[in-house]
Parts: sequence; structure tokens; C-alpha cells
Amino acid sequence: MNSNSAASRQDLERRVRARLDSLTKPPGSLGRLESIAVRFALIRGEEMPSPARKGMYVFCGDHGIADSAVSAYPPEVTNAMLRNFSAGGAAINVLCRSLGISPEFIDVGVRGPSSPRIRSFRIAEGTRNFIHEPAMTREQAGQAVGIGRTMAQEAAMSYDLVGLGEMGIGNTSSASAILSLYSGRPACETAGAGSGLSPEGISRKAELIQKALNLHRADPSDPMGVIAAVGGFEIAALAGFMVEASLRKLPYVLDGFIVCAAALLARALQPDVLENAFFSHVSREQGHTLMVKTLGGSPYFNLDMRLGEGTGAALMMGLIDSAVRLYREMSTFAEAGI
Amino acid sequence: MNSNSAASRQDLERRVRARLDSLTKPPGSLGRLESIAVRFALIRGEEMPSPARKGMYVFCGDHGIADSAVSAYPPEVTNAMLRNFSAGGAAINVLCRSLGISPEFIDVGVRGPSSPRIRSFRIAEGTRNFIHEPAMTREQAGQAVGIGRTMAQEAAMSYDLVGLGEMGIGNTSSASAILSLYSGRPACETAGAGSGLSPEGISRKAELIQKALNLHRADPSDPMGVIAAVGGFEIAALAGFMVEASLRKLPYVLDGFIVCAAALLARALQPDVLENAFFSHVSREQGHTLMVKTLGGSPYFNLDMRLGEGTGAALMMGLIDSAVRLYREMSTFAEAGI
Repeated sequence: MNSNSAASRQDLERRVRARLDSLTKPPGSLGRLESIAVRFALIRGEEMPSPARKGMYVFCGDHGIADSAVSAYPPEVTNAMLRNFSAGGAAINVLCRSLGISPEFIDVGVRGPSSPRIRSFRIAEGTRNFIHEPAMTREQAGQAVGIGRTMAQEAAMSYDLVGLGEMGIGNTSSASAILSLYSGRPACETAGAGSGLSPEGISRKAELIQKALNLHRADPSDPMGVIAAVGGFEIAALAGFMVEASLRKLPYVLDGFIVCAAALLARALQPDVLENAFFSHVSREQGHTLMVKTLGGSPYFNLDMRLGEGTGAALMMGLIDSAVRLYREMSTFAEAGI
Repeated sequence: MNSNSAASRQDLERRVRARLDSLTKPPGSLGRLESIAVRFALIRGEEMPSPARKGMYVFCGDHGIADSAVSAYPPEVTNAMLRNFSAGGAAINVLCRSLGISPEFIDVGVRGPSSPRIRSFRIAEGTRNFIHEPAMTREQAGQAVGIGRTMAQEAAMSYDLVGLGEMGIGNTSSASAILSLYSGRPACETAGAGSGLSPEGISRKAELIQKALNLHRADPSDPMGVIAAVGGFEIAALAGFMVEASLRKLPYVLDGFIVCAAALLARALQPDVLENAFFSHVSREQGHTLMVKTLGGSPYFNLDMRLGEGTGAALMMGLIDSAVRLYREMSTFAEAGI
């Protein structure tokens, strides 16, 4: 940011805060809703921004590691859930209907037949099993990041605010490996129950991930190498989306463990990427608290959710909508004659 | 509850939980949203309840103690805020529009001229200053509780879910006194900044409240006596509302410090009154954490809000709406063919 735009940003922040303090409420009494409104205005670069057009980008991919029984569900469930997204029956469909959000489902690498209303940019039918070999080639990693960037370009034209979600049986394993690399903590601290593993299942999963980390020795300062080694197509696309969104005044909302793993990669690709991000909730997945801490975030909900799909992000979009409407629509003391 | 209805309640809970576990998500993965849906169904006594019709009851009253400068705002602001409610410019108006909630403003004892669209059941132009004398007569206390009960009868016909809010300059002093009586803690632990007192102002306020507590020696097991001694008209009406709502399968959402003080009174009037209640947020008002603990509640948001009006309750109503829609609208595994 040059000094001119830094000055105009400071000027905008001053005007937004002045308006907040002129509204008919004790100064600061809306608490974090006020900082949400300030943040939204600064990202949009507008004094009276509106989050009227809201989109939810759910990136989907399969994982070779799912063949090693690291999930409570078989890999076929990813494809079945895409059918469910297509039919409007999944949790994220319901929340999008409930909160006025347009859902966009992007298949970047799912196995099996395609479904209507799911946009297909399939790179391959799932990644390879990173316990034995790299999850993908560097070229595929670049392709996946590129699809995410393209989607963010589109989103920046269509929406004022975007939520990010994901679906992919096995993807908590990939996210744990990424968190281990960026936090420096072993897999036994970053691996969790995912969609519902037993304690024994979690130990086994952590062991497999730790072995893979030792095998690949990926370098966190080379995020494309990390993606190629232990990533997922949907995680790479999410990282690319964040990088592009941060260049385009597009605010985006993080979800749980997987989307935050993508944020770790995005930050490694471009350090200021979180300036356009909103955190949402702390999930019950064991590594998520460490993940959010590593990202320096501060979530708004603690609902013990652990579903993914963008469900936490969707709830946060409702809260952002309320915060910005308060900022836009409340009367000032002068208008109310108080 | 007789054993028949206890059995049918258990049966309903079993059916609701079975449906939740049949939905296309890992069991329990929606976390507290699942317990919200169960609670809502149990209060309504229906397997497929809907929170489609939502109302917000904001009870308003003035306080004699406001003449003793215990607030950052002069007492006239209560009346001015009623004009603002009437014109649709206050925070609670915006949140109600944003979240599909019908606002109902009830004047149970405000000073000064009336405003259109504010329903007037004025008992007196404010309470008396409880630093020197009882806030009201026992008869007035009964009248205020009765207005609340009447409003809940009406609400039970019109709405599926109700939020509770309040407006009244000086009412955190009344709420602090009530909290001291029901928690056994001194006023220096229950009095806070309200709408924005300085640290010196808070000390002075705590001292005045403690003196009043020593003067009246109200008995917590006699809630009508507590209301008469240190209550407010709007606080008494809120307590009456809760008592009646709990007899009528009407779920209601608590807000911040003042509404929770009313819940302490309501529970003293009728021990099972909280069975129909949802907690919402923890406010920044210093006594609210103690208040919520005394009530045995567990809030969902921590947004550092301290505005009142029902603003925290309104946000929680949005969350309940999402939770119940997930429960109602998600596909089951069988429907999705998974």
C-alpha cells in the first residue's frame, strides 16, 4: 500500500468510526459488531458499503488418503454429498436459503459421476495417497490454485461478501498435515476426530500423517510444494481464492479446520491475505483452536460445530449482515433529535 | 408435570433426536445448533415445529434513581428513545427488520409525551427513587407483572418465538440491586458501567445501591416485595411475561443484564420458568457473567455488546431460526440415497 492509499484508508476509517459514534446508542455499545462494520467498510473501500449480494463457494475434492481408512465415512460419500448439494438437502443448502446466500459448488477433483448444478473443474479423480507418494504434481497444485483465483475473480463481480466451504472425505488429514507444517507441532496435536473417528482411529490417523510428514519433508516457505506433497485440490483452490479475493476488495469468511488450513497456505503465498478475511467459529475439531491461534484470529461463535461445508461461515455472514445494517440504517442522534 | 406428560415429553425428545441423527451429517456435528432444535421442539411440544412467526417485546419504563445521576444519560433519553423506536431508527428496529422479527414496544411507565406505535400501559411516570423510598407500591408491582402476563398471552397467539428487550435510563441500577439480592453479592460486584459511566461514577452508583439494599432489606423469597423495593415497571413486566410464557409453550429469548434480572424475579415467582428460555449473549456489563451463572445459563455469543433493547436476543433468534430450519429442511441419509 502506498502512502496515499494508506492516508485515504485512515481517512475512511475515521469517517466510519465517526458515523458509528453518531448513531443512537452509547459509543462502543454494539461491541464487536462495530468492529465488524469498520472492517467491512475498510475492505470494500466505501463509507456506506452493503453486503446485499452474498455468495458461498464450496470447493469439493477427493483424497487418496481416504483409502487408508482415516475417516469415519468411505470416500464415496464425497460424491454422494455432491448429489445432496445438487438436490438442496445438505446443511449448507439450508443455511444459504435461510440467510439469503447464493451457493456455488465447485468440483475440483471428486471421484465418480457428476451432478447437475455442480460446476466441474475436475483436475483428477481425487489426489494420490500422500502416505505413500505426493498428493499431486506441482503442475496440478498450480492448476488448483488457479481455479480458486478464477472463481474469486468471478465472485468479485457478483458478490459483496463471500463465504468459503469445502467437502472431501479425508480432508481433515490433509489439513492436519498442513497445520503441523505451519505450526511446527507434531501430528498427534493436529489430528482429530474429523467426521467421527474413535480415539484409536485418531491415534492411527496421527501416526500415518506423522509418517507422511517425515517422508515428504515439505518446506513451509514453499507453499506450492506443501500443496503438492500433502494438499488437496479443494484446499489449494480455497487458498487461491483467498489470494485473489484479497487483491479485489472482496471480503471472505473463513469456516472451520479445512478452510483455515487453506488460509495458512494462502498466507504463505501472500502475507497480507488475511486483511480481507473474517473468522467465524471455533469448531470442535481438536486442532482448530491451534489453527486459529496460528492464524492470529478471534472467532465470534462457539457452537461446538464440526461439519464443515461452510456452515460456520454462513452463520457469520448473517452476523456481518446484521452488523453492517446496524451501521447503515440506525438513526444518528441528530436525525432522532436526541 | 404429571407422569403421562413426562413420558410423552421423553417420547418426543427421542423422536426429535432420532430425526437429527438421520440427517445428512455426522451425528452431533451441528453441535449446539442440535440442542437448540431439540429444546425448541420440546418447548413447543411438536415434532416439526417452526419459528416462522417471531416477535420482539421491548418493555420500557423510567426510574426515579435516574435523578441521582447513576447513568451516563439524563432520564429524558428514555422518552427520546421511544420516539426513535417509533420512527424505526434504533438498533433493535434495524435488527428486527434484518431478521424478520415483528417489534412490539410497550410503555409500562415512561415519563413525558407518548409516541405513535408505542403501546401505552403506563402505570406511572417512572418509579420513585429507591435510594430514598420503595420504587413502587406492591399494587403497582402486581399491575406491572400483570401487564407482562397479558402481553405473553397475546404473544402466545401471535408468535412461535419471542425475544425480550427493554429500555429505561437507570435500569441497570435496579438490575444490580436485584442481582445482589439473588446472588448474595454486594453492590460493588454487581454494579457496572451501564450506558457508559466512568470508574468513579460506577463506585458512586455501587455505594448508592448498597445503601438502598441496606435500607429496604428486601427478602429474595418475596419477589413482589423485591420489585416494590428496588424494581422497575419494565423489569416487573418482563418477569410477568416469562411466567406466563412458560405456561403457554412459548419459547422466549433472554437478552442482557436487565432482562436477566427479570429472569431472577420470574424464577422466584415460578421455579421452572427457565424451561422455556434461551440464553443469548454475555454482555460487557460487569455483573452479567455473575448473573448468567446465577441463572445457570450458557450463552452462545460473546460480542462485547452492552446496549440492551433486546439486541442480543434478536441475534439469538436468528440462530434459533437457522438451527430449526436445519432440523426441518435437511435431507435424511435415506432421502439422499447415501
